Amino acid sequence: MKTILITNDDGIHSPGIKALKEAMEKLARTIVIAPDRDNSAVSHSLTMNRPLKVSKLEDNMYTVNGTPTDCVALGIKKILASPPDLLISGINGGANLGDDISYSGTVSAAIEGTMYGIPSIAISVGGEPPFDFRGATRIAAFIAQKALNDRLPENTLLNINVPSGHERYKIRVTRQGRRLWEDSIHETHDPRGIPHYWIGGGTPLMDPSEDTDVYVFGAGCVSITPIQLDLTNHSGISYLKNNWKLEHN
Amino acid sequence: MKTILITNDDGIHSPGIKALKEAMEKLARTIVIAPDRDNSAVSHSLTMNRPLKVSKLEDNMYTVNGTPTDCVALGIKKILASPPDLLISGINGGANLGDDISYSGTVSAAIEGTMYGIPSIAISVGGEPPFDFRGATRIAAFIAQKALNDRLPENTLLNINVPSGHERYKIRVTRQGRRLWEDSIHETHDPRGIPHYWIGGGTPLMDPSEDTDVYVFGAGCVSITPIQLDLTNHSGISYLKNNWKLEHN
Amino acid sequence: MKTILITNDDGIHSPGIKALKEAMEKLARTIVIAPDRDNSAVSHSLTMNRPLKVSKLEDNMYTVNGTPTDCVALGIKKILASPPDLLISGINGGANLGDDISYSGTVSAAIEGTMYGIPSIAISVGGEPPFDFRGATRIAAFIAQKALNDRLPENTLLNINVPSGHERYKIRVTRQGRRLWEDSIHETHDPRGIPHYWIGGGTPLMDPSEDTDVYVFGAGCVSITPIQLDLTNHSGISYLKNNWKLEHN
Amino acid sequence: MKTILITNDDGIHSPGIKALKEAMEKLARTIVIAPDRDNSAVSHSLTMNRPLKVSKLEDNMYTVNGTPTDCVALGIKKILASPPDLLISGINGGANLGDDISYSGTVSAAIEGTMYGIPSIAISVGGEPPFDFRGATRIAAFIAQKALNDRLPENTLLNINVPSGHERYKIRVTRQGRRLWEDSIHETHDPRGIPHYWIGGGTPLMDPSEDTDVYVFGAGCVSITPIQLDLTNHSGISYLKNNWKLEHN
Repeated sequence: MKTILITNDDGIHSPGIKALKEAMEKLARTIVIAPDRDNSAVSHSLTMNRPLKVSKLEDNMYTVNGTPTDCVALGIKKILASPPDLLISGINGGANLGDDISYSGTVSAAIEGTMYGIPSIAISVGGEPPFDFRGATRIAAFIAQKALNDRLPENTLLNINVPSGHERYKIRVTRQGRRLWEDSIHETHDPRGIPHYWIGGGTPLMDPSEDTDVYVFGAGCVSITPIQLDLTNHSGISYLKNNWKLEHN
Repeated sequence: MKTILITNDDGIHSPGIKALKEAMEKLARTIVIAPDRDNSAVSHSLTMNRPLKVSKLEDNMYTVNGTPTDCVALGIKKILASPPDLLISGINGGANLGDDISYSGTVSAAIEGTMYGIPSIAISVGGEPPFDFRGATRIAAFIAQKALNDRLPENTLLNINVPSGHERYKIRVTRQGRRLWEDSIHETHDPRGIPHYWIGGGTPLMDPSEDTDVYVFGAGCVSITPIQLDLTNHSGISYLKNNWKLEHN
Repeated sequence: MKTILITNDDGIHSPGIKALKEAMEKLARTIVIAPDRDNSAVSHSLTMNRPLKVSKLEDNMYTVNGTPTDCVALGIKKILASPPDLLISGINGGANLGDDISYSGTVSAAIEGTMYGIPSIAISVGGEPPFDFRGATRIAAFIAQKALNDRLPENTLLNINVPSGHERYKIRVTRQGRRLWEDSIHETHDPRGIPHYWIGGGTPLMDPSEDTDVYVFGAGCVSITPIQLDLTNHSGISYLKNNWKLEHN
Repeated sequence: MKTILITNDDGIHSPGIKALKEAMEKLARTIVIAPDRDNSAVSHSLTMNRPLKVSKLEDNMYTVNGTPTDCVALGIKKILASPPDLLISGINGGANLGDDISYSGTVSAAIEGTMYGIPSIAISVGGEPPFDFRGATRIAAFIAQKALNDRLPENTLLNINVPSGHERYKIRVTRQGRRLWEDSIHETHDPRGIPHYWIGGGTPLMDPSEDTDVYVFGAGCVSITPIQLDLTNHSGISYLKNNWKLEHN
């Protein structure tokens, strides 16, 4: 029987991971290993300055006092006897689109799985809270089944974003767009009047390119983006060699 | 006069950022905005669950109770009156090579700068501690001067790794290699005998490809890798469309 | 109808607070406000460097991303419309005896309640884990009923310790004894070989005085100690005036 | 030669601990062991859920990634070869008066020292920031010299509060007064509009009793309060035995 490793960044008590677990149980044996607390925007943080504690809540359900990346590393290397057939991270409450995926704990968990050679999926539901996870649950089941049967491109994960509350969806395969934020740093004051800055909110600048995750999600479709581990700008290599002449010293 | 924004992930009291500041002061006006504490392996974490406090230590030197990414965002959006001409992050104590750059707070600070359109550089010194920052300081000055004069490839930062303690260096422009770790999760026990896991250490599996950062650094050269913001596996898009037929529903 | 405010330091998902809630529901309307995570040994910490988030899990059950003291302050000042008739903190997994109560989040929550003029009780079960909360639950119900009917000494809370797994108990009213620990700091090493110290475990030095909480608990009885807010050594005042002659300058 | 252990809760980089070190160096050999970061209001927290790292900054100056209580315990048990002759904690920026001392990391460090049998002093400067540490520095030297020569009451520490910016002081030996705060919890909102509560600020209700620390400090004098480890309300023991009849079961 196949095994699916489930994690997230909203923490083990969030509704999205419960919905995801129910959907995955129809496909394979599941094991949940998730942070004990909200880890939104922790990116690909790995906890190296202290040891991590794994707590067993019930059979095949564990919590870690660390990040989503910690959960995946401990799950694959220490908790599971053999590597899972699939890793799925989510369902995140809030979209992970464009440049923002770089901050995302949800997507980073899938990056970590991909590093270990595990087919990996990140799935998020976006729109206005409270989120309706039903559509994303159906999409998760559909794509997870495909990923169990068929192979993913090498060193590549899928980043899926589903609009909240739709009845029927179109799926679009996209590239990562731009998503910069305006007015996303807010000044506030502590009780002694000292200024602090709170990051969040603001207005996203829309990416006008129709083949991007940002655009497609904004148009009410499910966006699926293949994300790779290699961050090299390959054309930049020859530019730096030829124009900057960096190797001529 | 040009302005260079300096940050790091080892924290404002680390020797690497002091060496870097001295080197940059010969090129331009500098402003240091760095975490108040070690933030190694925090990746591209953005602090959104609490406000951030900016403390001015002296003129043009600030500390933030947050991550390197927080420092860059606050610096560009709130502290600096106009965008800096260059961002440089480091000098990190410890190499940032291969897959590991995804965990790196040093590299993520340069990613954040690149998102805002600022030419950005991450620089690390690797080898056995204690680190000798002198070689990396000279390389930092050389590349920063080039980046102030010449343009970088679009949406691309430079990730520089310098071996500790060499006298003369060869520079090589590289691609990001693979760097997986064996035996990097260690079991320990708390005083009550409960097991915990501590991530770190272990043995890196060497990437045998001679054009990678991992290989070139291992051979005693300075590695410079152009890193891009776009994580899309572009060839994967057509694969998913044609083989998985994801858009035919 | 009377209202009982329930909190703890082991976090809202711990078994001790669930057992306590069940027992208190037979006596009065209950409201649970507890930390979202284990806060053992946080003492009387108050979170002032960041704002606190109150999350409603269900009717009359709230969690706070802070300390037990934060929970009590927010509960009395912001969440409850009128002050509760009783505050009870626990049931802690692990005894809080002798000098150790000064570190205890469980006892500190009751100190905070007492500061606001609320009759307050801290209750812990000690011995070997896993803890049997049944005896402590019965004692909690018995003492809580008394505290709802009768008055406590002014500015004074009750610190109750119940041995785990007994069938029948003797109750003894005690004073706070001494409880020093030997060998309670353990050297460990991180994966890079750097030494760290882990506090915990060790051997308690027994207090030989038969009227102390430490002795009575060790003898298998329930210990109830009245704890006051005033920390002044009143006889020390005249000593410092007369022997140190501090006021003669 | 005698040895003085110096710690604080504002962190090793704060001006108060630097002023205190200078003053103590004239009296004895000093060793500084302090938190790496601001630990205000951490009370008597002991870090037991992770190991602690001790970093040596220079000879006889160490920093710990933990609380003031952690610093004292590690200092006495692990760093120092023999117990110090005196422990002094501060100079805190901000008064520690009345009920507030229960939250104070500064006072708790002195409580920890007293538990280990070390004569211990907590010293704070209060009033309007920025604080003038000169007066408190002179008082610290005067009282520390007395404590090195003469004995303190058993199991008792001194809590000293000095008004900022005075030229000449009267010293008064006081008892701990009441200091409750009005309007000390402030509602704020995160960037998504979700309410949070920030504790701090507000108006202290003055204690009208002329023999209290609160009153005496308010009148511009130096307040010195002897604080004991025993928290028992001794008269409450007979009340609970006789009126509640707790031992008659």
